[in-house]
Amino acid sequence: MKIALAQLNYCIGDFSSNIDKIISVLNDEKERGTDLVVFAEMSVCGYLPNDFLNYNQFVIKCQESIEQIAQHAVGIACIVGAPEVNPILEGKDLYNSAFFFEEGAVKQVVRKSLLPTYDIFDEYRYFESAVDFKCIEFKGYKIAVTICEDLWNLGNNPLYKSCPMDELIKEEPDFMINIAASPFDYKHEEQRLMILSQNSRKYQLPLLYVNQVGANTDLIFDGGSLVFDKAGDIVAELAYFKEDVQVFNIEQLRSSIVLGEKSIQKERVGQVYEALVLGIRDYFHKSGFRTATLGLSGGIDSAVVCALAVEALGAENVFPVLLPSKYSSDHSIKDAIDLANNLGCQYTTIPITKITESFEESLADEFAGLPQNLAEENIQARTRGVLLMAFSNKFGHILLNTSNKSECAVGYGTLYGDMCGAISVIGDCYKTQVYKLADYINREREIIPKNTITKAPSAELRPDQKDSDSLPEYDLLDEILLEYIEMQKSADEIIEAGFDSPVVHRVTNLVNKAEFKRFQTAPILRISPKSFGIGRRMPIVAKYKF
Amino acid sequence: MKIALAQLNYCIGDFSSNIDKIISVLNDEKERGTDLVVFAEMSVCGYLPNDFLNYNQFVIKCQESIEQIAQHAVGIACIVGAPEVNPILEGKDLYNSAFFFEEGAVKQVVRKSLLPTYDIFDEYRYFESAVDFKCIEFKGYKIAVTICEDLWNLGNNPLYKSCPMDELIKEEPDFMINIAASPFDYKHEEQRLMILSQNSRKYQLPLLYVNQVGANTDLIFDGGSLVFDKAGDIVAELAYFKEDVQVFNIEQLRSSIVLGEKSIQKERVGQVYEALVLGIRDYFHKSGFRTATLGLSGGIDSAVVCALAVEALGAENVFPVLLPSKYSSDHSIKDAIDLANNLGCQYTTIPITKITESFEESLADEFAGLPQNLAEENIQARTRGVLLMAFSNKFGHILLNTSNKSECAVGYGTLYGDMCGAISVIGDCYKTQVYKLADYINREREIIPKNTITKAPSAELRPDQKDSDSLPEYDLLDEILLEYIEMQKSADEIIEAGFDSPVVHRVTNLVNKAEFKRFQTAPILRISPKSFGIGRRMPIVAKYKF
Repeated sequence: MKIALAQLNYCIGDFSSNIDKIISVLNDEKERGTDLVVFAEMSVCGYLPNDFLNYNQFVIKCQESIEQIAQHAVGIACIVGAPEVNPILEGKDLYNSAFFFEEGAVKQVVRKSLLPTYDIFDEYRYFESAVDFKCIEFKGYKIAVTICEDLWNLGNNPLYKSCPMDELIKEEPDFMINIAASPFDYKHEEQRLMILSQNSRKYQLPLLYVNQVGANTDLIFDGGSLVFDKAGDIVAELAYFKEDVQVFNIEQLRSSIVLGEKSIQKERVGQVYEALVLGIRDYFHKSGFRTATLGLSGGIDSAVVCALAVEALGAENVFPVLLPSKYSSDHSIKDAIDLANNLGCQYTTIPITKITESFEESLADEFAGLPQNLAEENIQARTRGVLLMAFSNKFGHILLNTSNKSECAVGYGTLYGDMCGAISVIGDCYKTQVYKLADYINREREIIPKNTITKAPSAELRPDQKDSDSLPEYDLLDEILLEYIEMQKSADEIIEAGFDSPVVHRVTNLVNKAEFKRFQTAPILRISPKSFGIGRRMPIVAKYKF
Repeated sequence: MKIALAQLNYCIGDFSSNIDKIISVLNDEKERGTDLVVFAEMSVCGYLPNDFLNYNQFVIKCQESIEQIAQHAVGIACIVGAPEVNPILEGKDLYNSAFFFEEGAVKQVVRKSLLPTYDIFDEYRYFESAVDFKCIEFKGYKIAVTICEDLWNLGNNPLYKSCPMDELIKEEPDFMINIAASPFDYKHEEQRLMILSQNSRKYQLPLLYVNQVGANTDLIFDGGSLVFDKAGDIVAELAYFKEDVQVFNIEQLRSSIVLGEKSIQKERVGQVYEALVLGIRDYFHKSGFRTATLGLSGGIDSAVVCALAVEALGAENVFPVLLPSKYSSDHSIKDAIDLANNLGCQYTTIPITKITESFEESLADEFAGLPQNLAEENIQARTRGVLLMAFSNKFGHILLNTSNKSECAVGYGTLYGDMCGAISVIGDCYKTQVYKLADYINREREIIPKNTITKAPSAELRPDQKDSDSLPEYDLLDEILLEYIEMQKSADEIIEAGFDSPVVHRVTNLVNKAEFKRFQTAPILRISPKSFGIGRRMPIVAKYKF
């Protein structure tokens, strides 16, 4: 029996385009003599449509899509993920289901039981949890089909009381299929390989795993669908960060002949680079936008974002703007111009000094006698924000935000200033990771000027300012932030781990105080297991005395 | 037996202050000879601490608070809501629990079973669901204690499979206690009265209900704790929108003697007014801020926000700024000044024309030959944003956002311009509701100038501009928005209900397209059953073809 794994890029709510893709693969595979095509979790509507699942009409569209697919599942079978209406008036309105089509009809439906409701996931907000499990029978085979999280419990995950595969194995299936919508983070691939491989070994069954690929705003699906033999060895691996369809012969899999190559894992920085490029590209293409703008300061953050944008959209579609003030150093301007030239972007320069002076004159009476402070620094950052948004509004460019995760964490950024932008490209990359991205971008030739990489980071909002004037060095800062944000340790626990007490308290206080700023931040392309945004929900008005 | 209901205002994560309040009431009631004091759900840490519940140290602080309270529960018993560590390594880490204290120790713990995970609620993200139910025995009485949602299922709520009170009633309890953290919306009070009353009648038991009061960022708890006799009649009602402690004699309640007065419900607009005032006040006071600023345009939105802020913070703490442009009409400036004078606020005027001209000059080369459009209008709005934030940064005032729900819905507002602000005061009030608030504010004397109320709404960003140039009249717009947002109907369903098809499609498209703007909006004081923010989670990159 020949099974195709179809790893496709779906757009949320774009039913006609998603269904066309599915049907097109079905038709191709029918010609190739494939028996069964497996598509990912929530293929018909994209993952996750969020509260559009509360709209009846949306659910009806999902049902209509299922009917449409059924008409094309003639002479070929397929499995497609979609929301399913809970037929009884008890519990949540929907199930997260896998539909099995054969001979032009839905033959069986498998429902998801373990509903991730943590970090970025909100599945219990919408779905009822399945309690019954049954294998699918097809062409003499018994197939144990599960949906994503249902295979993430090996019976030892303390989060869940049940283990769906422990039920299905009682029917003595011949192999397993898992359909997923499992977003990328830099730790996820490793974890996924381990858990899926353990499942194959535990149940002594081959496993075919199909993931989504593509980005939906902040979430990036990396694809990387996998096939394991019953010993838990990887037999095949689909492409990362792009669509791919591959066909496997189940008899060969069951006799444990290794068909493909072992997974060769890319280094982490390369994965992050590809994830961010895909994140930018899909944000633009799925929204119908083509061109981007961003402020180029000569610093490393905007340089890295500009290089990523050029890779994603093409140099001819990226329009950087230089916005020097009287505090901008000559080398910053030169570094920014060198970068734009290296990338082949058409750049513009708008000095901001006249505008900031005009603000200061207008405020002179009100601010008379008061010392210069953050207010004046922020006027510079916000003037840049207004100019970049004017470019965006006039030419239809989308403004890319260039803040990194370190500054996002400690609130070292100006709300409505450098925090402007439709999408935050590197808001989930700590400053030290941004340097690694810069090295990766320069791996073949110097794109980001060396001086941008080696000089001390500065916001250049006052004479001779350095980031290190007000923040710990980034090596130290990022380590503390990782403990506090990713590892969810308290200040006391971080100090116990050997960090300096006053520095830790200063950093954690800064993080907590910046919650109001992060609330108003653009969506952030997620590449870590704990990014700012919907995956980290913090109160704003609160006392944090721990 | 005398039972005190303690309706207090808690601050999230401010353990010492919350515990002090609880202990202070305990001590007072001990002197008064009260037997049992009942505090609300999640009293020790405030509702809801969100992902701070993922921090060990936070949970330890909750446990320490429980131990501290126990030491004071000598000679008096009490019930206090708090997170509880799930003692077994299965399921979520925590329970949402009610602790019963007697003789200096925790005597029993009641756990919540029905975990709201919809709209603004995320309880299944953190809590395991209880499966065992047991009454508390105290001084010869059996008390059926439940937590909030556990009493919202009368066995006929399709969302839930179980009905905790149906289990507890088997023990033949003498009366019911429900502790809650149940946020205000303008429909909630009515619904609460009905459901609680139905419970009393169904189980033929008196019911004592204790709610939180006070605002935590966007969520406003209205208090309004209630006592019902076993016939479902209201016996007593605690204060709305402020702290209150009242004592009841359980023998009297059981013999069905009506002790107090029937609930006299305020008109809706008065409730919303009080909710918003409390929302502003707690945002400031719980964050340690005292003074506010806002832009006064002469229009109705900023006028209403200014009046609310003065009520919440005092006229001496509200500093409005007039920011006229060349398109501002004389009457607008006069209306704004009249308002400030009527309220007794010290206002400032900063004309913006020179600054916007300075922007336009700097952009002249780049924009040469292109027609004026939204870009120039937005520069005006953003210049105002920069000036208001400069006031905020220089003087430590918190900027109040003045956008209403209608414009928030259709994206009729400038990101980083008039959408600036730390908290959106009327972002959950449709324009038509803002007019009702204005009338309410003027109920005794003219505070908001009559001209502000009667003139046609205008953003005044170009000559003779009117909101109705680009939007349907607000009466119609708000009706469609209510159907789409609150009622979650699709465009087709709204058209079926009798609305004009092109208008409906235009409005729903505007709502969907503005998702990226709302994502970056300030937190919005929630007064409706469906406000923008965490209660309405929508994808940004998505196709909405329905």
